[in-house]
This record gives sequence, structure tokens and C-alpha cells, in this order.
Amino acid sequence: MLLTEKSQLLWLCDQDSAVLEAASKFYPDAKTTTDISDVINDDQVEAVAVATPTSTHYQVAKQLLNAGKHVLVEKPITMTSGEADELTKLAEDLSVILMVGHVFMFNDGLRYVKDLITSGEIGDVYYLALERTNLGPVRTDVNVLWDLVSHDISIITDLMNMPPDAVSANGQSFLNSDVEDVVFATFSFDSGVRAHIHASWLNPKKVRQITVVGSKKMVIWDDLNLQEPVRIINKRVEFPAPGSTDGSYITYKTICVDGGAEVPQISMKPPLQNECEHFLDCILEEKRPISDGSNGAAVVRILEAATESLKSGTGEFVRCFND
Amino acid sequence: MLLTEKSQLLWLCDQDSAVLEAASKFYPDAKTTTDISDVINDDQVEAVAVATPTSTHYQVAKQLLNAGKHVLVEKPITMTSGEADELTKLAEDLSVILMVGHVFMFNDGLRYVKDLITSGEIGDVYYLALERTNLGPVRTDVNVLWDLVSHDISIITDLMNMPPDAVSANGQSFLNSDVEDVVFATFSFDSGVRAHIHASWLNPKKVRQITVVGSKKMVIWDDLNLQEPVRIINKRVEFPAPGSTDGSYITYKTICVDGGAEVPQISMKPPLQNECEHFLDCILEEKRPISDGSNGAAVVRILEAATESLKSGTGEFVRCFND
Amino acid sequence: MLLTEKSQLLWLCDQDSAVLEAASKFYPDAKTTTDISDVINDDQVEAVAVATPTSTHYQVAKQLLNAGKHVLVEKPITMTSGEADELTKLAEDLSVILMVGHVFMFNDGLRYVKDLITSGEIGDVYYLALERTNLGPVRTDVNVLWDLVSHDISIITDLMNMPPDAVSANGQSFLNSDVEDVVFATFSFDSGVRAHIHASWLNPKKVRQITVVGSKKMVIWDDLNLQEPVRIINKRVEFPAPGSTDGSYITYKTICVDGGAEVPQISMKPPLQNECEHFLDCILEEKRPISDGSNGAAVVRILEAATESLKSGTGEFVRCFND
Amino acid sequence: MLLTEKSQLLWLCDQDSAVLEAASKFYPDAKTTTDISDVINDDQVEAVAVATPTSTHYQVAKQLLNAGKHVLVEKPITMTSGEADELTKLAEDLSVILMVGHVFMFNDGLRYVKDLITSGEIGDVYYLALERTNLGPVRTDVNVLWDLVSHDISIITDLMNMPPDAVSANGQSFLNSDVEDVVFATFSFDSGVRAHIHASWLNPKKVRQITVVGSKKMVIWDDLNLQEPVRIINKRVEFPAPGSTDGSYITYKTICVDGGAEVPQISMKPPLQNECEHFLDCILEEKRPISDGSNGAAVVRILEAATESLKSGTGEFVRCFND
Repeated sequence: MLLTEKSQLLWLCDQDSAVLEAASKFYPDAKTTTDISDVINDDQVEAVAVATPTSTHYQVAKQLLNAGKHVLVEKPITMTSGEADELTKLAEDLSVILMVGHVFMFNDGLRYVKDLITSGEIGDVYYLALERTNLGPVRTDVNVLWDLVSHDISIITDLMNMPPDAVSANGQSFLNSDVEDVVFATFSFDSGVRAHIHASWLNPKKVRQITVVGSKKMVIWDDLNLQEPVRIINKRVEFPAPGSTDGSYITYKTICVDGGAEVPQISMKPPLQNECEHFLDCILEEKRPISDGSNGAAVVRILEAATESLKSGTGEFVRCFND
Repeated sequence: MLLTEKSQLLWLCDQDSAVLEAASKFYPDAKTTTDISDVINDDQVEAVAVATPTSTHYQVAKQLLNAGKHVLVEKPITMTSGEADELTKLAEDLSVILMVGHVFMFNDGLRYVKDLITSGEIGDVYYLALERTNLGPVRTDVNVLWDLVSHDISIITDLMNMPPDAVSANGQSFLNSDVEDVVFATFSFDSGVRAHIHASWLNPKKVRQITVVGSKKMVIWDDLNLQEPVRIINKRVEFPAPGSTDGSYITYKTICVDGGAEVPQISMKPPLQNECEHFLDCILEEKRPISDGSNGAAVVRILEAATESLKSGTGEFVRCFND
Repeated sequence: MLLTEKSQLLWLCDQDSAVLEAASKFYPDAKTTTDISDVINDDQVEAVAVATPTSTHYQVAKQLLNAGKHVLVEKPITMTSGEADELTKLAEDLSVILMVGHVFMFNDGLRYVKDLITSGEIGDVYYLALERTNLGPVRTDVNVLWDLVSHDISIITDLMNMPPDAVSANGQSFLNSDVEDVVFATFSFDSGVRAHIHASWLNPKKVRQITVVGSKKMVIWDDLNLQEPVRIINKRVEFPAPGSTDGSYITYKTICVDGGAEVPQISMKPPLQNECEHFLDCILEEKRPISDGSNGAAVVRILEAATESLKSGTGEFVRCFND
Repeated sequence: MLLTEKSQLLWLCDQDSAVLEAASKFYPDAKTTTDISDVINDDQVEAVAVATPTSTHYQVAKQLLNAGKHVLVEKPITMTSGEADELTKLAEDLSVILMVGHVFMFNDGLRYVKDLITSGEIGDVYYLALERTNLGPVRTDVNVLWDLVSHDISIITDLMNMPPDAVSANGQSFLNSDVEDVVFATFSFDSGVRAHIHASWLNPKKVRQITVVGSKKMVIWDDLNLQEPVRIINKRVEFPAPGSTDGSYITYKTICVDGGAEVPQISMKPPLQNECEHFLDCILEEKRPISDGSNGAAVVRILEAATESLKSGTGEFVRCFND
């Protein structure tokens, strides 16, 4: 409802006329075209969502930005961080909104988890373990890193409020030569925090899960559990005063405390709807998107480092940013 | 029942008399001592199970072997592969049984999984993903690698019927300085197979799970699911003939096939009971244990390589064996 | 897609103009009205779906049938079996289709379960246990029996290919006077088969589950498990020959056999889509709906018997049909 | 440990010498006999646990009580309430302890649930739904009512702190003539509270679960979930002031509130150990067991009423006690 009050759909554009026809049934009032120029040249068009193949993002977004359109581009923003930087600067120079579709930044469950971290409720974060597996869809244009792990890089950067500093990645191409189906990656933050990702499109089980281990509490986020996406576990390890015992003859160095668990009630809206609303709000209120061009560029820079580690075959950590 | 027919418990030996007293209530007919010499010098003693701290395995086992006793030693067999080799040779020279307590080799669920691999039912193995997490027990004498991952190294070596060739490990010591609480390790086989392990004693959830992804089928083993420890999933990716389509305008390069799942009925005996029976049977039938000294030595050699990768902090793969 | 090829939406009719306006946004090409006469008098209208409050079904459907329209009416078809019989006869006399929206008869998972029963694969059916619970939506116009159990009556009649013969129901009105929030009902078939239903809109957990216990196999259907809605369990009880033993000193009268489980792959389409397609197919191919008027009338007759038992407060079985 | 400090095992008594021999291996210091007189006549014996077939409880317990022994008898205490009353009076007259093994009264999870009810935290109890199913063990001496539902009767009487007033039961004998394998029973309290039980030893799934629905909160107890046996769900239905709306055009009569859930940390000891300790404590401290003879007699009286309803085949409610 809100979306249709804030905006009006003018054009559907795709190079495949069959796709256009199918989409048109849902939006009979929108015009259709296979030529992006029609969209670019329509002065009524103020904003455009770009969901073309990743390799075309740069060219398509550049044209649109140059025409003064606000652009919401699917993740990852571009194939190289250089292109991402260029688009970011362009949008700034032209004072138009450039936003990247890092959809998990608009997931109400993950926003709840971020609040738990930011407020200090779970204490210092020790590490995050992320799982993103399923059988298919198997892509051949990009590997698991660019297809799936791009989401997780965006998530850990968002949750920790900073990007990781280095990454060690390894994986294997089982189905299609040189396209990794499975990737294991460890991201390290100079603060000592670690984030590990197991991503695979060659797995019997669909999993979308993140475990955050903090010094005071632990959190599990399960995107497939629609009723209870977040679970806060009151478990922690305590260090008793030196020499203290539990009354028996054993002296512990650490004590594991289990204080039960809580399942908060979270009002969930579809993340994609949140994302679109944020885009429209940023246009209407002239504010900066939380997933702006520089955020998207950071994700690409980290993907480049992960790719370097992955393709080296050595497992070596590669730093994400030049210091 | 069977165990008590094949053997008789003669001695309980521990340096802590409180422990001896507690154990004695369960085995009132066994003699007790805090001095291992009493056991070594008792000619009636034919076999000894050693469950002392890892750092003492070498000295204790060596004394027992030299006295002509058969020895079942807890895993890992020793702290160094050199010591393991020495014990292995000693047992061979003296013609006594040396067995290592790699208890998961005696888990009926995992034996079922091994049969699925060996028989070719699941096709070529692509990769294995292993999870071993819990909150505690937090140790300070050894890290997660030696405490937990030692199990997984034994398991993957057993399932693949060969040891891995190289390992990349990284982790972090959050609780106690220089004692890693969390380790992520990828083991690579020169055949292309990968095995990844996530091990942690600093985690909100107890998980003991292995996923085996094959070219024909996939298997999930869950040690905590007592009713249904093994699940065979009839999922696979097929490569259609070039140019074939699904009738629409889309040409797929791969097709994901989902043929449902099966839960085999597996008769489970306690793994530790299986292990003890195997030890006694090897003695009585003069046969070689499946987890003999050289098997135990291989596990230690792989642990040494994993430790080298872990402590380097670089994430680099380290080869397990000199070729 | 198919639906829109077989039919065209002409009218949206509701007494509430706010509802009409909201619906209209999704179907901008359909005309709107608050007066059903507009629909009745439009000769272009061949078929109508009626989803008004149950108490109005009879009057609305009767008008439409008399105008020669095919009618798909929500379940239960009417408030009394007399009205249901009248509508059924009317549709027959006028040779128009009258179909009731017993949507679970169009659930692909349940159709799979029905095949397992019909083919004899699970042996003789002993009993069915059905659970349908949730928190809300709490209705005040009808009780749990007419709101929820009406579904289950349709399901058991469909699965057993015959209606039950008698019913014992009890329940309680906790929230609104004389409107039962919780009902427990046992349906008995003269063949000896039993079906038990626990229905509640005052429950912490959403459950939609049916267990079918057969002499050869057992089946669990879980409507909320989208990935694996049906599970076939190879469990059964066997009667060994008299005097046989298991080798020990115990003589069993029965042996419980556990042969594992299977999860068939079932291709699921939305039940409501299946239902609508069936309605259109019946019109186009002039065939009888599986949930026709007499099927709907039988459900109402059983509901009347259940209501009699429930309201008596005695728990007594009431027969559903005059023999 | 505690048990062995408070008591010493003197005798093992069973009519089957094979059973005696097997048990003897665990308790080599206890004497064995097939003749209960040996136990009765041993003046050293102060207390006896009776776990013979139900039909023998009365005779065995009577002899022991008459000999001045304290008696812990398995549930149900006897086959008739008359016998139960007689034993209860006998124990009182002789000032010895008579306790019945209603083991779930000693389950720490259920004690936690009882506290939630007693403290008023979950508000007024509306109803309880109990499930107790599994495949086997199939008995032929007693039906599901006396074997399984006897537990649930003890539980609901304990949780509500009063016995139910009437019961409607129905079931079916599928495997052995006249021995019901499946029973559905509704227990009503004159206060309006209901408790429903689904009990079966002919079911594919082992379930031990109780749902308590209160006016303020709801609770689920799952005996098979060792880590998290109790879950408190902050769901309730509220009645808004008349005429209030949610801002839209809809006027609700009730509002469903979902405030998340909590999993309390409960320290669990084996219920049987708690039970035995309570028995010994009652003897040592001369106090009345919570599951004394009159408690056991009430359970039998309710079982008799349930049996009357079940065997009538009419489903009719039968009152449990003469008013």
C-alpha cells in the first residue's frame, strides 16, 4: 500500500519479450520495452531498480545516473571495486541516490540481532558462524562466493558496524569447471572478532542461519523459522576467582553458565518491501541509504580479497583494504 | 554381558584416591591402587585400558607394552607422531595389541554411512561438512583441535578409507590465552575431496553432525538423533544433454533432482561397548584392531599439520605427510 | 496462468466498499459492486465463487443457481443439511455445477496419503489422529466445530472414501459464551476405524497434522512442513506363531517391527489453485466435482451430529445418518 | 550417592531366577530369593519397593505392611479402589509409610510447570492437552488406560491440585481382543477446566507432551526434550473495550497477543532417583509422601470411572467420585 502511494510503476524493461509479457500481466498499467533508452529518455522516470546480470550493472547504472535517475541496483553493485567507486562518486557529484540491494540489511530479524549487539546486551562479540546452503540454484556465471557469500559479507559488515580486515577462503568446483560450488571462508577483524561462512549450492539441506557468540549471551538467527527467527541463549563462560572450587576436589578454571533462553516476538515485514520503502524514503527525504554506493563498494572489495585467497588455493589470509 | 564373559576386571588405578573410591562402588571386586607398578607387575593382567591425560599416554603405554600387556589407549595416542611411531613399532616387535580409542570408528551410525560410501551407493564423494559444537567443557591442557577435531580426523580418514593430504586451519583463543576455543579447518584430499570441520566449545548449541555430499545421493548423520541417526537424501545435480530445455525458453546447464529421502533403521549399540568388544576380540582372535597404532599415529601426524597451519595465523594449507 | 486462460474475472462483489477498493487494486479490470443483483443479471457471468459468511451461503447460492450460474461456495456449504440437500437438488435439476470449497481435498500431500491408503500399501487403516490448533483467529459467529473441524470431517471422509457413522464430541467455551474454542471429537466408522480430532484456536502452537496408523505402515502428514509434508514410517506390530520366542526366556504375544522411514518427493501446487482449476475443468468438461453438493451436504450432516453430541454435554456418540 | 548413604540394599526377590541372576550382577552384595517370605521375615528389612504385576500389588503390599515394612508400590497401586482404600487404612493404622510410584510427580520439569500454575503466573488454567504415544511396548495384561493413562491422571491431579470430577473415554482394541491400544479421554473439572489425553502404544512417533493453556500464558512440557523440557509462551487472548477498533474499519471482539517465549533453565535429576529419595526421606523424617495411599486410591477411582465410560462404548461422561 505504502509503496504505491509513494511511487507509480511506469516502465517494465527487459531484453526478453517473453519475460516482459509475463510481468505485464501483474502490472497491466506499466509500459514495456526491450530498449533501456526508452526508460532513460522518459523525463517522468525519477527512479529505476536494476536487476540485470551482475556483469551489466556498471554500464546500466552509469547511464541511468548520468540521466539524473535515482538507482537501486541489485547486489553486488559491480564486478570490480573500481567500477563501484566510480558509480559512487558519480551519484554524489550528481546528487542522486545510489542504493545497493543488500536485502538482509532490511531483514527485521537481523535488525533485532544488530540491536542486541549494539546495545551491549550480548557483551563483546567473540565470533559469528554463518551457514548458507541448499541444493541449487546452480549458477555458471558467478561462483558461490559472488552469488551467496556476498550476502554474508554485507551482513557481517552491518552487524559489526565495520568491514572485516582480512579473509581466508577455500572451496572447490565440483560441477562446473572453475565455478566454486562450495566455499568455506573465515573473515578476521583486527579487533579479534572472527566470522566464518559455510556457503554451498550443493547441499542436501536448505539452511540460512547465523550464530553470534558473545561474552554475555549468544544469539541464533534462523531465516527459515518464520515464527521464531531469533533466539537469545543466556549461556556464557565465567572465570571464577583463582582457587575457588565447586565444593568438590576439582578446581575449575572456567564455569559454563546456562540461564535458559528467550524467543522475542518480532514483527516481520518482507525484507524486500522494507528495502523498497527505504529507497523511496531516501529519495523523498533526501537522505543517504544505509546500503549506499560506498557500502556496496566495500562489499565488492572484500569479495575481491576473498576471490584472491580462494583462487590462490593456498588458503592464505588476504587483507581486504590497503591500510 | 559379552564383555564380562570375555574378560574380568582386576585393577582400578588412579592417582586420585577419591576417584578410586567412587569407581570402586561400581566394581567392588576389583583391586585399587594409585601406583601403576602394581598393575604392571601383576602377571594375571593381560590387557589395560589407559585413559590418563594425553601428555602421559606415551610413558604409561610404553611401560605397559614393555611388560607384555595389550593396551587400549585413549585418543589421541600421543602428543607427537614420533612417540606414536615408537609405540606402534614396540607393540609390533613384542606381538601385543596396541589399539587407540577412536570411538567414532565404532559408532554403528557412522559404520552405516561408511558402507553407503564404500558400496558406491552415494556415488563419488564431493565433500564432507562436519560440525562439533557445544558450550564446554572448556579445557586448558589442550585446545579444540586436539580435544575435538582429533575425533573428526579419525572419522574422515575412516570414511574415505585414506587420510587427508593437507589442511588449512584457523581459530581463535577467546577464553584462555593460546588455547583455541574455536577452530575452522579444511582438509583436502589430492583426489579433490574436501572435508571441513567447525569445532567449538564456545557455542550455544550442541551439534554432532556430518553431511556427506555425493554425486548420486547425500547423507546426513546426526549423533544426537538417537531414533534416526542417518538420513539418506536422494538429491543430485544432473547435466542434461547440450541444448536440451524444459520446454520453456530457458536452457539449463544443470538440473537439480529431488527424489525424497530415506531413514534407514539402524540397530545401535553403545559405541564404547563396541570399542571394548573389538579390543577383546582382537586379543582373543589375534587380529589387528581397525584403530591400531599406525592409525593413531596418522591422526597425530594430521593434528601436527593442522596445528602448524593454525599457529601460523596465515590460514595456509600444510601437507600432512612427507611424500 | 492456466486459470486466466480458462476464465476471466468480471466482477468483484462485497457489501463493504472498503474491501472492494482494496481488492480492486489487484484486479483493476474487474467491475465492482455492492449489489449481488448486478452479478446475477450479467449474462456474461457463467460462474461465481461465494465466500460470504456461512449463514448467507444458502440464500446467495440459491439465487445464483436459479440464474443458471455455476457456483463454487466456501465450506461448509450451508448451516443445515436440509438447505444443502435443497441446493444440491437445485443444481442437478438446472444442470449447473455446484462445488464446495473443501480445500484439503485439493492438497497434493493429502492426495498422496489417500493413494497410500487406497492402494493398500499401508494395510488396513486402524485409526487417524488429527490435530488442528493455533492461537486465533477467534471467531464469534461459529465455533471451532464449524470453523475448523469441518475441514477434518471433509478430510477423513475423503481419505476413508466414506463418511463416519457416529461422533462423540466435547469441548468448552472459554472466551465467548456458547462458542466453543476447543473441541475434542472421536468419529467412529462401523468398520471399526476411528478418527480423532483435537481442534482449538486457543493454543500456543500452530499444528496441522494427521497421523494414519495402518496394519502394515504408518503415515504422518504435516501441512506446515513445506519441504516434506508426508512421511511414511515402516513400523508395524506382528503376531508371531504361538509359542515362538526371541531365543531368551520371554514369550512375546506381539513384536514391534521398525523398518525405518521414507520421505517421498511430492510436487506441491497451491491447494486453492488446484481447487479453482478443478472448478473450471468441471464446467468446461461437464463433469462432477469431487466436492459436489452431496459431499458438502454429508459434511454438514456430520457437523450436525457432532454439534448434538457437543451441546448435550454428555459426550455421547450420536449417529450421523439415519440408517 | 545419597541413596546409598540413606539405605542399604539387602534383598533382590523375583519368581524368575534368570531375572534374579541378571540383577545380581549389578548388586552382588544383595541376597537373592524367589520367596517373598524371606524378605518378610528378615527383621533387618525396613522398607520394600514392589514392582510386581499390578494384579499382585494388593496381596504383596498387604503382607509387607502387616509385617511392619514401609512400602513403595508401583503405579497403579491396586486393581480396585476398594483394595487401595484398604491398604491406605492399613498403613495408617500401623504407622508405616505407603507410597505409590507415580513417577511424574517427581519430574523436575513438571514440578516447574506446577509452580507456574500455583503461583498464578499463567493465570487461570483453561485446559490441558496431554499426548503419550509410541510404538509398543504392547501389553496384554492391562490396556492403555491402566498402563499409560494412569500416569496422566496422576499428573493432572497433581498439576491442578485436585482430581477431575468426570471422564469421557473412548478407544479401540486393534491388536488384542478387549485390550484397548488407543484411548482418547476427556477429564472435566467442575470448575470448568478440561484435560484431554491421547494415549496409544500403536503410533509411529514417541511423544510425551503436555500443553497447558492459561488465561495469561501458555506452557508446553516435552519430556523427550532433555535440554529444554519446559517452554513458556507469552500468548494470550485479550478482550478490548467495547467499540474499540484497530484504526481500520474492523471491530474485533478479541485480540490475540503474542509476546514471544521463554525457555527456563531447569536443573533436572532423574525422576526415579527423586522418587526413591522422597521415599527414604519420608521414612527417615516420618512425613507423608506426596503420592501416598489416598493419592494412589484417587487415581484408581478415576481409572475405574474412565474404564466404565470406555467399556460402555457410548462415550458418556462418568463421574469419578460419589458426591
